[in-house]
Amino acid sequence: MKPVAAAIVSLAAGIALGLCAVAAAAVTVASPNGDIVVTISDEAGIPSYSVSFRDEQVIKSSRLGMRFKNAPGLDRGLAIASSAAASKDETWEQPWGERRFVRDHHNELFVEFAAADNAPRRLGVRFRAFNDGVGFRYEVPRAKNFKTDEVTNEMTEFVVDESARVWWIPARYWNRYEYLYRESSASDELTSHTPMTLKTPSGAHLSIHEASLVDYSAMALRQIRPGRFKAELAPWSDGALVKFDAPLVSPWRTIQISPDAKGLLNSSLILNLNEPNKIGDVSWFEPGKYVGVWWEMHIRDSSWGMKPLHGATNENVRRYIDFAAKYGFNGVLVEGWNLGWDDDWFGNGKVFDFTKSYPDFDLSALAAYAREKGVRLIGHHETGGAATHYERQMDDAFKLYEQNGVHVVKTGYVADGGGIQRIDEKGIERFEWHDGQFMARHHLEVVKAAARHKIAINPHEPIKDTGLRRTYPNWVAREGARGQEYNAWGPPPNPPEHEPTIAFTRMLAGPMDFTPGIFDLEPNKRAPVREDMTRSDPKIRVETTLAKQLALYVVLYSPIQMAADLPENYERRRDAFQFIVDVPTDWEESVGLAGEIGDYVVMARKRRGGDDWYVGAVSDEKSRDVAVDLAFLDEGKTYVAEIYRDGAKADWKTNPYDLVIEKKKARRGEALRVRLAAGGGAAIRLTPATEQAP
Amino acid sequence: MKPVAAAIVSLAAGIALGLCAVAAAAVTVASPNGDIVVTISDEAGIPSYSVSFRDEQVIKSSRLGMRFKNAPGLDRGLAIASSAAASKDETWEQPWGERRFVRDHHNELFVEFAAADNAPRRLGVRFRAFNDGVGFRYEVPRAKNFKTDEVTNEMTEFVVDESARVWWIPARYWNRYEYLYRESSASDELTSHTPMTLKTPSGAHLSIHEASLVDYSAMALRQIRPGRFKAELAPWSDGALVKFDAPLVSPWRTIQISPDAKGLLNSSLILNLNEPNKIGDVSWFEPGKYVGVWWEMHIRDSSWGMKPLHGATNENVRRYIDFAAKYGFNGVLVEGWNLGWDDDWFGNGKVFDFTKSYPDFDLSALAAYAREKGVRLIGHHETGGAATHYERQMDDAFKLYEQNGVHVVKTGYVADGGGIQRIDEKGIERFEWHDGQFMARHHLEVVKAAARHKIAINPHEPIKDTGLRRTYPNWVAREGARGQEYNAWGPPPNPPEHEPTIAFTRMLAGPMDFTPGIFDLEPNKRAPVREDMTRSDPKIRVETTLAKQLALYVVLYSPIQMAADLPENYERRRDAFQFIVDVPTDWEESVGLAGEIGDYVVMARKRRGGDDWYVGAVSDEKSRDVAVDLAFLDEGKTYVAEIYRDGAKADWKTNPYDLVIEKKKARRGEALRVRLAAGGGAAIRLTPATEQAP
Repeated sequence: MKPVAAAIVSLAAGIALGLCAVAAAAVTVASPNGDIVVTISDEAGIPSYSVSFRDEQVIKSSRLGMRFKNAPGLDRGLAIASSAAASKDETWEQPWGERRFVRDHHNELFVEFAAADNAPRRLGVRFRAFNDGVGFRYEVPRAKNFKTDEVTNEMTEFVVDESARVWWIPARYWNRYEYLYRESSASDELTSHTPMTLKTPSGAHLSIHEASLVDYSAMALRQIRPGRFKAELAPWSDGALVKFDAPLVSPWRTIQISPDAKGLLNSSLILNLNEPNKIGDVSWFEPGKYVGVWWEMHIRDSSWGMKPLHGATNENVRRYIDFAAKYGFNGVLVEGWNLGWDDDWFGNGKVFDFTKSYPDFDLSALAAYAREKGVRLIGHHETGGAATHYERQMDDAFKLYEQNGVHVVKTGYVADGGGIQRIDEKGIERFEWHDGQFMARHHLEVVKAAARHKIAINPHEPIKDTGLRRTYPNWVAREGARGQEYNAWGPPPNPPEHEPTIAFTRMLAGPMDFTPGIFDLEPNKRAPVREDMTRSDPKIRVETTLAKQLALYVVLYSPIQMAADLPENYERRRDAFQFIVDVPTDWEESVGLAGEIGDYVVMARKRRGGDDWYVGAVSDEKSRDVAVDLAFLDEGKTYVAEIYRDGAKADWKTNPYDLVIEKKKARRGEALRVRLAAGGGAAIRLTPATEQAP
Repeated sequence: MKPVAAAIVSLAAGIALGLCAVAAAAVTVASPNGDIVVTISDEAGIPSYSVSFRDEQVIKSSRLGMRFKNAPGLDRGLAIASSAAASKDETWEQPWGERRFVRDHHNELFVEFAAADNAPRRLGVRFRAFNDGVGFRYEVPRAKNFKTDEVTNEMTEFVVDESARVWWIPARYWNRYEYLYRESSASDELTSHTPMTLKTPSGAHLSIHEASLVDYSAMALRQIRPGRFKAELAPWSDGALVKFDAPLVSPWRTIQISPDAKGLLNSSLILNLNEPNKIGDVSWFEPGKYVGVWWEMHIRDSSWGMKPLHGATNENVRRYIDFAAKYGFNGVLVEGWNLGWDDDWFGNGKVFDFTKSYPDFDLSALAAYAREKGVRLIGHHETGGAATHYERQMDDAFKLYEQNGVHVVKTGYVADGGGIQRIDEKGIERFEWHDGQFMARHHLEVVKAAARHKIAINPHEPIKDTGLRRTYPNWVAREGARGQEYNAWGPPPNPPEHEPTIAFTRMLAGPMDFTPGIFDLEPNKRAPVREDMTRSDPKIRVETTLAKQLALYVVLYSPIQMAADLPENYERRRDAFQFIVDVPTDWEESVGLAGEIGDYVVMARKRRGGDDWYVGAVSDEKSRDVAVDLAFLDEGKTYVAEIYRDGAKADWKTNPYDLVIEKKKARRGEALRVRLAAGGGAAIRLTPATEQAP
């Protein structure tokens, strides 16, 4: 173990003056490689910190602190009273993930700020400096007059260069996280969800986020002056930000730092700041691919409810099960199977019953039919945002699924911003944010209840991901961004730059159930299946090439990946579909190879427990050439590269189906050059040549 | 009295169904002239309203309602239970103002929404329809389980056409109201203070604001979807929005409506929705003009504190008193007279003492010297935002000023957003917004305390104006926008479009102490008076012509108007200064003649109790010709027009001092044509010709 890099700079002066806060103290902690240095100060009695990266001050002096409802604030009149250093270098294994082994290598400094008036209050802040960034969290001990209380203001700031570029989506707005990312200047007014990604004038890339959001409100970032972003916590319906019984331990506030965009793709900092697995063996959860009764509702071939044209019928579900079995997929999602969909459920999810099927859907018969073929049904619980209503039913609902061999349940919280229904202790209906403390608690309650039934959870309209899959590895994926569904009904559909943007923003938080693999890129141009099943505006379409749809399986990580299109559309393009059949969803290693935010991204991933590698590259609205450096391959081994790339005339708008599939020999030390069309992409499978021999 | 225009459309249906909210009810109230119709509905159990203006639905169906901390929300599951109509047409007199007589002519409808479950809760909403707009407020009666409570969400919406244009400044941002106005689309995300001004695609102009903000938090408007603006109340430091003992009566939510921009200038709706005078005779307050020890600090000729160079010295103040007396001004403001300015007061106003002068400032001697010359000192209380600290001293402070014949006190609340210091019941320091309920209460406490000492109040960094000058006519002016001071230090200074923008936004709320009349337009280009008194960036200057500075005295209404520049700068331009000497600050009538938001504005005002009229016209960065229609003059009378206008080569940037002063005969039926330069303006005095005879 290396010696701890933390150093106490001028703390002695503070102590000598009896903490009267006349002389400011400062302490520092550096990353193991020394590139990152955090300086913590109490100048003018204000707890604050700054972060330098290779001599650039990427976070300028920024406030720390908290204010409370019943107790005096811990945000001014404070002095550093003590600090304690520690260090760690260990490697841990994920049960599933984007990489099997994760190295947690950091130096730690725990700093206690005390009131200058010697009141018995203490603000503890624990800092961890990694080679890929910084995390810190508040730890406020229980004390006389500090027991049950509320956080009324978290003062945490992140001050960056005023001219930094910022990629963000709005927080405290109407609809969860489902927005197109915007690019702004740090001088522009904005309130952003996290992860928020920044690029400083010198080219350093930062992602500000949080880790281990367990019993706290989600942090958004509000620009309060040019370059100055302040924590803005999602309030409870009664205005409280966080309700707690002391001691208060906040989530980790995180700043991932890289000299380039691709470095952000290779950070495991968020996972490292979460607690180890608390639910034990999850081998019952198998990463894999799935199809389902889903896209057909979005394009209005069928409906969730009985009216006008029910999709979740026994006959239709068997068709999907047969298809999944034929191609080795392990899951079939069925939405619209339970009672409630024909009622006015939007924003009123209390109409849903999670144990009662529609009459044309026989759960146990279909589940048995699937199991015989080596497939599992994937369950579905749309709550319409009625969280308390769901909590009351979920144990029975999970039990029913467990009895039918279901191991994954997709949940849903379709309700506008501020619209999660909670019934309080008095029976009064309240409306909470999707990312408030109530929902942080709710989602974990659901995940824990599901774990007791050996069920993994994939929430849509969720709270954001803060790496809790490490602690609760049955929390396997989630939505929390604009997914493929927007290409069915928009408006607008996801533009070509969407995927190379979310790769560097939303995806830094964790797995996303994006549902890639749409092959019929203009479904709204097809004739309706029935007169009363009108399609969306035909201008709304998938704004990618076919090759890009394949590349998304590698670029956007999730342990469960849907092949979202209709079976017949895959049968029609068996050639392209082969990549989806081949691509795994669980990885030994993942490497971000190249990219720029919103322009393009190239990822390589190695099958967990295998020798084959997969490369995905996607572009924005511009065509471009990328050179895939094959440095990740084994030395001296020959591989066969199966390349699924855009044809010479491919273009998402004019010629999206122009796909070339070709094989080439490939070796480490070489670079594979591929051209990405406008809105295009490339998907590559690399297998050791011997395995390919006939 | 005209018959009431309110009509009950389908209420009977609702009653017949026992309020089970199956059939929606709707009631309407129309303006006296019938142009404006408000429709109130309970469709789907949601209380809502819409507003039409000459057959255009200017406010589409918009939610009403409230949510509370301890009681169930009154925002859904409601039905219209009763409605009661009334009507009024009366004219009342202002003690001072932009017009002497104000006509209050409206139809009223009080609507009660009741819970469909027959719970004893009621949401009352009182609507008033005027010819110039609509006001409505909530009235929630006291009931069992509804006594002491908190508002946790006000659901009020204002839904406009998605492509409407919006002029706005950000709310919940760092610095009060001191921003440049931005022009956006109603489809853009924004959170705006009120008044927020809109222009619909058809050309209708709306101003959304509030009236009579007495014991409630200020309402900002948050765009929550394209075209949909929702009330966002400034929270207390503990997260509560409004604390109340039932009954709860909200301020009036107001929508002023006009077919054109200038119509907004002629509305008295805000005043009409305030209560009549509650403090009795205020004849001790005399509208007038003042000079003061102020601009010299902003341009760093002197300082507020003793260091580096005290401005409020006996000698200097006497110089201003002499100047005021010479030209018939009735006030001399002195800032920096009291102890505290040399301490670190910014955000820490507890250092100020409001009864102790600096040793080189003799309050009683100077006040006596002024009174002898027919001038009054104008007092100054900068609180640095320490509101509780000020409340504890203000009675003594007002008494001291009263003893010295001071009748106007300028207060100040310089503290960043969220930075008003409040000491709570437990002695804990809290930080409140400038526009939260605490400050609504605080300002009224100050105004009432001042009234007991015959003192008028002019707060800077105030809460916004909601017309309370009608009820408390010693609340004579305030800041609450970017004033002239920004032209001393910016950055940036106010651009040329600033004044023709605030005329249609901020000024719709009420009087502003803008402090016009700067004659040396590039003060930062002058040599510093001492080496350690460095000026601001010389690029920061007044971006107007000299003529425009004169026009502001007519365009921007306040009963107290500063001649903000140094006496020597006025002496140097006695020709131009004559307009400031002549222009009154109290009016018989005011008429908005022409204008477009952010482009230009032309106002005419008639001296209260006199026959002379004054016209002010200001332009943005473009030069333009305006034709002043003299229809406001008396029929058959000849007037002499003294015109102070931009010269042919005037331009704020290249030639700002090019001023032409000329006299012309003028009569009703004619139009005076004047050219406004880029960043220019015109000021015109019209006096009956006989009075001008020698």
